[in-house]
Amino acid sequence: MKKINFKNKFAKFDKLWEPKVIAKLNDYEFKLVKIKNDFIWHHHEETDEAFIVIEGSMSIEFETETITLHQGEMVVVPKGIKHRPFAKEEAKIMIVEPKNVRNTGDALDELTAPNDEWI
Amino acid sequence: MKKINFKNKFAKFDKLWEPKVIAKLNDYEFKLVKIKNDFIWHHHEETDEAFIVIEGSMSIEFETETITLHQGEMVVVPKGIKHRPFAKEEAKIMIVEPKNVRNTGDALDELTAPNDEWI
Repeated sequence: MKKINFKNKFAKFDKLWEPKVIAKLNDYEFKLVKIKNDFIWHHHEETDEAFIVIEGSMSIEFETETITLHQGEMVVVPKGIKHRPFAKEEAKIMIVEPKNVRNTGDALDELTAPNDEWI
Repeated sequence: MKKINFKNKFAKFDKLWEPKVIAKLNDYEFKLVKIKNDFIWHHHEETDEAFIVIEGSMSIEFETETITLHQGEMVVVPKGIKHRPFAKEEAKIMIVEPKNVRNTGDALDELTAPNDEWI
């Protein structure tokens, strides 16, 4: 059992859009990611995905609306729903989802990040 | 899809030690709970349990150590591990775990709270 401090964990990496695993809960993972500018459209066929804003603000574009989240806010994107995250300024985000979920979902892209990178 | 604001959700209830569901992720739930003073010793036979401090500080006593968490910190209590949460001052906590987990785990107590209470 080790407590996890988000600020300390975020200090350990700089690369944008590469989720880092900080904790495991059964077969789910908590991941931290720094984001800025535009991600790609994608969806996850098999799972919902939770975004929690730890610092800053982010938006998620859906086909019919765009949701903007600030620090202390979260949203769950249901499985199968196309979405495109973006952030005007760098934001610090926590993602909760099952392990082995590809960050770009159905898409393979230069933004596709390796899985299971722990910090 | 609706964004969830932790502060707004915490404003909707006052009762201590009664987790309120704010979001569902597959068969998992995100719950908010206000805590103060002592909870009871218990364990969860079937699942890990994540505690994330949204505001204030909390401690979790284990058989061999006590961990204190402040705002911006989390811990995952592995399944089967006996633990006892407590907080000297009121603290606002988010719990992530599968749905239908009893807050007092293996124990039935006056602190046992109803499940699936959404706010």
